Amino acid sequence: MRRIFDANSIYEQIRLKKTFLCVGLDPDLNKMDPRYLQRKFPLFDFCRDIIHWTSDQAVAYKINVAFFENHGPHGWIQLEMLVKEIPSDCFFIIDAKRADIGNTSQKYAEYYFQKLDADAITLHPYMGVDSLQSFIDYEGKWSIVLGLTSNPGAADFELMPLGTGQKLYELIIQKFSTTVNYNQLMFVIGATRADQISHARNLCPEHFFLVPGVGEQGGDLERTIISGMNQLGGLLINVSRSISYPNSEVVLENYVRQQVAGLAARMKPFIS
Amino acid sequence: MRRIFDANSIYEQIRLKKTFLCVGLDPDLNKMDPRYLQRKFPLFDFCRDIIHWTSDQAVAYKINVAFFENHGPHGWIQLEMLVKEIPSDCFFIIDAKRADIGNTSQKYAEYYFQKLDADAITLHPYMGVDSLQSFIDYEGKWSIVLGLTSNPGAADFELMPLGTGQKLYELIIQKFSTTVNYNQLMFVIGATRADQISHARNLCPEHFFLVPGVGEQGGDLERTIISGMNQLGGLLINVSRSISYPNSEVVLENYVRQQVAGLAARMKPFIS
Repeated sequence: MRRIFDANSIYEQIRLKKTFLCVGLDPDLNKMDPRYLQRKFPLFDFCRDIIHWTSDQAVAYKINVAFFENHGPHGWIQLEMLVKEIPSDCFFIIDAKRADIGNTSQKYAEYYFQKLDADAITLHPYMGVDSLQSFIDYEGKWSIVLGLTSNPGAADFELMPLGTGQKLYELIIQKFSTTVNYNQLMFVIGATRADQISHARNLCPEHFFLVPGVGEQGGDLERTIISGMNQLGGLLINVSRSISYPNSEVVLENYVRQQVAGLAARMKPFIS
Repeated sequence: MRRIFDANSIYEQIRLKKTFLCVGLDPDLNKMDPRYLQRKFPLFDFCRDIIHWTSDQAVAYKINVAFFENHGPHGWIQLEMLVKEIPSDCFFIIDAKRADIGNTSQKYAEYYFQKLDADAITLHPYMGVDSLQSFIDYEGKWSIVLGLTSNPGAADFELMPLGTGQKLYELIIQKFSTTVNYNQLMFVIGATRADQISHARNLCPEHFFLVPGVGEQGGDLERTIISGMNQLGGLLINVSRSISYPNSEVVLENYVRQQVAGLAARMKPFIS
């Protein structure tokens, strides 16, 4: 069993490492340093190396399940190997974006929370609170509900105004944050919209936000921190592709370490 | 490669078999006939038997991925074995309820549409049209978007009125049905709300609906058919638990065949 994380113990890690850094593990054979491609477990080896090069700075790791699922059983074998490499002091997020009716969500929750002992999983809110109840009911485990995502399609439904004047993502934040306390629930809030991070923070002062979109998708790091921080830290800022896949031929380890050190240095002034 | 299904070729199967029946494969070790439990591949053996006993009546099969994912790599091995058992004349649905930003959705789409050669996959609409584009872009493959689900939590967001007066699920139907044609797109519309099936049918006269909730969840079969049929059939009615898990000790094959024959007999009068 891993340690149990509450909001305060995530904040302890943030203060200890002086970063909000969540390192996303999205192992893509089409983009990966070619020296991994001939390995027996390329997804595992790549991610394990990323972990080794970042664990002094990372507060959390987020495994993107799609990149393993893409490879069938051999991908899942590597996912299960990788889970054991997540440092025990780091918060461990499964990014699977699941959700279904109760008896089906229960099967997902059991696998990720019991078998893999993940601390948290990302979830789609569309089907309503009861569809996530199987996840919420796991004591000491976290649900990370999609609030406002970083893709342009967020405008289609998430930002749609309701009859009450609220936007849909605001209702979702309100509904879940008043149902589940801040020691078990976070929201995904994309960094491409800093004014909306402020707004989400006002709606929901206590809950952590998992923020994607700072790297590849163009979000501004400092504005994100100023907009989203709260008294318990309140932020995990995810970077994946921008630290893992250099655009030119460089030594991967140097590149990853430099990228992460650069981000960490920019985060440090905000953390006392 | 499987045959390519368009709406008309699904309707051909409906007319041939005189049913709208989609058999859901949700293999649950906690509920399963105990004679499977000692097998090496219990999920596979159970589902293969269900297929054998129902293939004369079923137009479609729907594999619920959660029940395989629950078992890690050994579950995925059985899922990949099972895919080969889906009869080639039947429409083959992966019920995974995925959706993510583009590069991640692409990894899911590639696995389910290329590697497993599924005809269709169920998808969460929350993140907007661009989040599903990787699925939509596969020629000859179907996206099945959650519209109105059969759980009580549908009231939380799906049924929420927007500023325009539309409900959220109505906007989702409108947005997707005007973007993707009826040979590549269906909606999940729960059978627990027959008046709402009629309403969804009015909004969207051409697209197929995949309808859960007729069995365990209490939806009325005849009202569902009258409310949801269109000139191309327009319905796949899913039953899973109610045909697979008898409440008393009976021979499983007899139970499954009886349940399915009973449903088929009630569907037949509606199909000319």
